[in-house]
Amino acid sequence: MRIPKAISSLIESFEKLPGIGPKSAQRLTYYLLRVPQSELNDFSNNLINLKKNTVLCSVCKNVGETDPCNICSDNLRDKETVLVVENPLDLMAFERSGKYRGLYHVLHGAINPLDNIGPDEIYISDLITRLTNKKSAIDEIIIATNPTMEGEATAMYLTREIKKIQEKDTVAGVTIKITRLGMGIPTGADLEYADDVTLTQALEGRREL
Amino acid sequence: MRIPKAISSLIESFEKLPGIGPKSAQRLTYYLLRVPQSELNDFSNNLINLKKNTVLCSVCKNVGETDPCNICSDNLRDKETVLVVENPLDLMAFERSGKYRGLYHVLHGAINPLDNIGPDEIYISDLITRLTNKKSAIDEIIIATNPTMEGEATAMYLTREIKKIQEKDTVAGVTIKITRLGMGIPTGADLEYADDVTLTQALEGRREL
Repeated sequence: MRIPKAISSLIESFEKLPGIGPKSAQRLTYYLLRVPQSELNDFSNNLINLKKNTVLCSVCKNVGETDPCNICSDNLRDKETVLVVENPLDLMAFERSGKYRGLYHVLHGAINPLDNIGPDEIYISDLITRLTNKKSAIDEIIIATNPTMEGEATAMYLTREIKKIQEKDTVAGVTIKITRLGMGIPTGADLEYADDVTLTQALEGRREL
Repeated sequence: MRIPKAISSLIESFEKLPGIGPKSAQRLTYYLLRVPQSELNDFSNNLINLKKNTVLCSVCKNVGETDPCNICSDNLRDKETVLVVENPLDLMAFERSGKYRGLYHVLHGAINPLDNIGPDEIYISDLITRLTNKKSAIDEIIIATNPTMEGEATAMYLTREIKKIQEKDTVAGVTIKITRLGMGIPTGADLEYADDVTLTQALEGRREL
């Protein structure tokens, strides 16, 4: 028996999503067959409107409803610090912690030569432009890319680029401090299972009590 | 920062799907933000049309494009045997094997008192009607519900109901043979890891060579 077109095309749509294989795509599709049409309509509308009702903030490149986004236009936030993340979900994680009150810059990726993603494919030049803007009040960049090969490469590249523009032209005499997120043992972790690199970094980053 | 409505509503739609938690729903939604609008439109259309372009076969309750479905209306298939499955994906599994040439009956579930699913919530009465139809040529029912508590309960209930109608009214003198799918060790399995029930059933179902 041939699978009806309506079913096989939805299976294909699901299969395109990351982390959803053919079996899961089938299961999700057959599950949706038993759901009321109104729920399918809602899901469908949400998909169509996802990009239509969101906009990339021209300042920080975060996904929001307005441009500039509500973080960049919030006067209560500290305009002197910019935290650089790979993607909007990383930003959300910092917002959830509620401990960071500065601005952000979302790169939308990390440098990854294997996937053909160079510095020009992500929003690095936009960050540089932001820093060299005469009106910029930024005096610290916290690099919070992931502690992976790609994230580290991006952090290194960013540091070099920022230092380069500072040598050329010290904006109003202000040198921008570049910091990297602290590395070490995460809360709740079990030392026994920590990897060598993490342990080494935890030792290097030890603090006096 | 508040998540844009367009994003949070799509996250909610994904979260309603079985096996997709809040984190996966977020990841899928942010992934779709980077996908071309045309792909979102396709996905969206496939969702809307899923139920509109499919129909439940009035004979076997399988999901298809026509009523009766292309299995029920296929004259080359053996009309004397009906294989009873819990859902359309089980039917697809048998079709993939290519070894079964009879008809099907899809129950769309199994009896599960904990979830308030009794015999009337699934298509059991439709199967009984099919069997008592004077024009029916069915002489064997293969019960292929899952080897779970619910599947076994459904198999037992079905057997009792079919025997009941046969006592009342032997349709044209034909007694319907009721069989259950063979149980035992699946191909490629490791005996060492087989559970007790499976081993017991494999012993009980042993065949002479």
